Amino acid sequence: MNLKSFIRDIPDFPSKGIIFKDITPLLKDPAAMKLAMDALLDLVGNQKIDKVVGMESRGFFFGPLLALNLNAGFVPVRKPDKLPAEKISVIYDLEYGTDTLEIHKDAIQKGDKVLIHDDVLATGGTAKATCELVERLGGEIVQCNFLMVLDFLNGEEKLRAYEIRTLIHY
Amino acid sequence: MNLKSFIRDIPDFPSKGIIFKDITPLLKDPAAMKLAMDALLDLVGNQKIDKVVGMESRGFFFGPLLALNLNAGFVPVRKPDKLPAEKISVIYDLEYGTDTLEIHKDAIQKGDKVLIHDDVLATGGTAKATCELVERLGGEIVQCNFLMVLDFLNGEEKLRAYEIRTLIHY
Repeated sequence: MNLKSFIRDIPDFPSKGIIFKDITPLLKDPAAMKLAMDALLDLVGNQKIDKVVGMESRGFFFGPLLALNLNAGFVPVRKPDKLPAEKISVIYDLEYGTDTLEIHKDAIQKGDKVLIHDDVLATGGTAKATCELVERLGGEIVQCNFLMVLDFLNGEEKLRAYEIRTLIHY
Repeated sequence: MNLKSFIRDIPDFPSKGIIFKDITPLLKDPAAMKLAMDALLDLVGNQKIDKVVGMESRGFFFGPLLALNLNAGFVPVRKPDKLPAEKISVIYDLEYGTDTLEIHKDAIQKGDKVLIHDDVLATGGTAKATCELVERLGGEIVQCNFLMVLDFLNGEEKLRAYEIRTLIHY
C-alpha cells in the first residue's frame, strides 16, 4: 500500500497557483490510516516521549493517536483565543503578515521529552513557533515528525536545531 | 479513576458568565485518555460503523482514535473554507447569528453506517447540523456520542431523532 495514493492534489487551494495536498482520502481509509500511524511511530522508535504536541487543526488527527501509542499525553497548540486557561503565545512571520499560536502554561513540565507532530512541513514557520513555545516552558524536543514534507519550501532549513523526520516527500 | 477529575472549570470563558469545561488536563494524561477512549468505544458496543464523523476542532481529538479502533474511516466536518475538495454546507442558528459547517461530498457513501462524535453536547446545534450533512450524503446515523453533555442546555431534545450517548454529565 502506497500512502501517496491516498493524498490528492487540489489545484488552486486555498488560492490561485497553490496545489493543496489533501489528506482526507487517507483519513477515510482505515487501513491507510493505520499504516500512516504505524509509520509515524516507527520514526520515533523507542525514544521516550512524555508529551506529543500537535498543532491546530490537522495536527490533531494523528497527534492523539501517537500519544496514546507512546503512552504520552497529548497537548494541543492552538490559534488565539481558543485555549481557556493560563497560556503563553508566540507571534511568527508568514509570507504576508504574522500569525499567533498559544499553549497552556501547564501543558509541559520542565524536562518533558516532547514529540512535535503536524500533518505537513511546509515553510516550517508553524513548527518553529511551536518548538519555541515548548522550549519556553522547559520542554526538551526529541523530534518533530510530519506525515509529509514539501521539500521545495525548505522547511527543514528553518528547523536545523531539531531532529526532523517525515514520511512522504513532495 | 474518575474522568470528571480531569475536566476543569474555567470561569468566564469564552465570555463573562460562562463556565467552560476544559478537557486539556484529560488529553495530557495518557491513562485518562485511554480510559475515555475505551468508554466511548463501549458506548458504541458491537454496532458496525463505516465512518466516524468528528467536528472541528475538538471532535478531532477522539474521532480518529474511535475510527481506528472501530476499523472505520475518519471524516472531518469543518468550518467554512477549510475543506479543499467538492463539498456541501449547512447553515445553522446560534444564540446570536448563524454558523456554517462543511463536509466533503465524497466523505460518505450512500448507506454508510456513521458514528458522530464531538467532545461536548451543549445546545446540540453543531451536532444537528452535522447529522443533516451526513444524511444529505446518504449516510445512516447509528449514534451520536460525546465525551460530556451539559444537561441544562437540553441538547438531547434537539437530537431526539438519533441515538445519543454521553459519558459525563454536567
